[in-house]
Amino acid sequence: MTATDRRSTLRAPTAAHRPRRPAVAVDPVPERPAGGTTWQSLERLGGTVTGVHGRDWRPRYLQLAEELRVKITSGELAPGTLMPSETELADTSGLSRTSVRNAIRQLREWGLVRAEQGRGTYVRAPRQRVRRRNAERYQWEKDRVLLDEEERLKTGATEHDTGLTVDDLKFHAEFTRVEADADMAAALQVEPGTPLLRRVYWTSSRHENAPLTMSYSYLPYDLVAANPDLLDASNEPWPGGSQHQLYTIGVELDRIDEEVRARPPSPDEAELLDIDPGVSVLTVRKTSIDTTGRVVEVADVVMPGDRTELVYSHKLQRWKI
Amino acid sequence: MTATDRRSTLRAPTAAHRPRRPAVAVDPVPERPAGGTTWQSLERLGGTVTGVHGRDWRPRYLQLAEELRVKITSGELAPGTLMPSETELADTSGLSRTSVRNAIRQLREWGLVRAEQGRGTYVRAPRQRVRRRNAERYQWEKDRVLLDEEERLKTGATEHDTGLTVDDLKFHAEFTRVEADADMAAALQVEPGTPLLRRVYWTSSRHENAPLTMSYSYLPYDLVAANPDLLDASNEPWPGGSQHQLYTIGVELDRIDEEVRARPPSPDEAELLDIDPGVSVLTVRKTSIDTTGRVVEVADVVMPGDRTELVYSHKLQRWKI
Repeated sequence: MTATDRRSTLRAPTAAHRPRRPAVAVDPVPERPAGGTTWQSLERLGGTVTGVHGRDWRPRYLQLAEELRVKITSGELAPGTLMPSETELADTSGLSRTSVRNAIRQLREWGLVRAEQGRGTYVRAPRQRVRRRNAERYQWEKDRVLLDEEERLKTGATEHDTGLTVDDLKFHAEFTRVEADADMAAALQVEPGTPLLRRVYWTSSRHENAPLTMSYSYLPYDLVAANPDLLDASNEPWPGGSQHQLYTIGVELDRIDEEVRARPPSPDEAELLDIDPGVSVLTVRKTSIDTTGRVVEVADVVMPGDRTELVYSHKLQRWKI
Repeated sequence: MTATDRRSTLRAPTAAHRPRRPAVAVDPVPERPAGGTTWQSLERLGGTVTGVHGRDWRPRYLQLAEELRVKITSGELAPGTLMPSETELADTSGLSRTSVRNAIRQLREWGLVRAEQGRGTYVRAPRQRVRRRNAERYQWEKDRVLLDEEERLKTGATEHDTGLTVDDLKFHAEFTRVEADADMAAALQVEPGTPLLRRVYWTSSRHENAPLTMSYSYLPYDLVAANPDLLDASNEPWPGGSQHQLYTIGVELDRIDEEVRARPPSPDEAELLDIDPGVSVLTVRKTSIDTTGRVVEVADVVMPGDRTELVYSHKLQRWKI
């Protein structure tokens, strides 16, 4: 069997099974000139379309990773299964050890397998995914503030993102009084040392131990203390969420600003989110501004990058021609 | 000098110098119960505010990292300087080797230092940051389509994000004809195998080698071929950008959808972006839909996580009370 034959046996993933991640992840610049990555070597090639490539222009390690992904998502390789060794995979695929290693790294990044020190690599159970539509979520949460408590009790923002019901979720809340450090003082537009209420929220699926999201919320303590119920973590999850809590102290939000970033997890976060240290986290710093222009809450939200996507839709105005 | 004395000499960063990243990065859940991270050990503590913490509730490694960051951003530790060894830092800070190692890892994630195999850790030159306001950027780009070419030539979307002028930027474009794989076929709503124009764009600051953003754009080949100028990479950067290109073939965009994710860089991406493999990348899959509801372009944008943030602002409707 030639290498070409082997490649032709790799099945393209079906749309239903393909991982929700950008194609570029699977496309590390095949045209990149060999050797040297300074800008000088990357000058525009010029001319018209520089080449014709068929469907298999992606690197081989990725084709192997996708073949294995299909086997995992189809159940052919069930959760808990020990993955074949690098040697076995190299033998059966005809690829180099380096390509095989890259394919396994890719599966770890997708959260499909877990490497256990000295024991091998195992197939993971599929995990709850979260697809957050924050713009819609914030307005939806605001609209619910004025509903009856009975209505507000029924569902919350995480259910909105995951399709889970409130009974499917576990919720952890922990409140602390802290003093603003320089970062939070700047973000909340208060003096360093100002007392803040720090609220930690972890939300997870009832079927999983690791949280789906971790949120660290900060509000000026004196603002919140106007309603002592808001200082009591045992009142969480609060029907109607943060915007209803603010409503009880006379605050209406005008807008929410977000700064989105990517970074590796800290060792503590990797343990808590139960992710491979090679999985990134998405972070959102969420700043809530009320109708008087005051910053009333700053929250840092941390989400595991192997099963979270943030979705935005930008409607454009029509040309007036 | 006691450990407490030493900690008190750590200066809080000034707002101007603080890295643009969420406080949660600097706050890995100090309240987390020691040992065991199953959900059972994380049940709500209940009761009112559970404790009072002063300003130094962040872990020590982070305080050391911030002290070093201030020294780097102030120039006290200039670019090219060899960082003190772990032993020296442990001696001068009074912290454990583990804490010192975590502090250095933090500086690497911030893109402030670079570890060179067998040679030590060096201070990096500060790098161009990008703060992308995509919602505004897309409408701004659309509004410019109908301007004169002279106006369109003046500036582009990257200048919009960085504050750099067009003369400060280097631009690399490379076009290829490919066949749609299953992923791109689903994204573009075409049959697998449909010919696509694949456009690779790398944009960098003239003062740096590594790109600020890498974009991989895909359009149905037959759609683009209606204007042969669009098949010629030497016409890039095109005055007015993608939306003007689409205008020349009679396409007006109605909306742009985005999916934002975080992941580790591939080895090729880490090399090309000149980032430590421990720095994450932010990715945006950008889907452009025209006024007839057709998907006309799908682009995967990859940005280095140590110097990029995506900024969104969500205006909320007022309560009608």
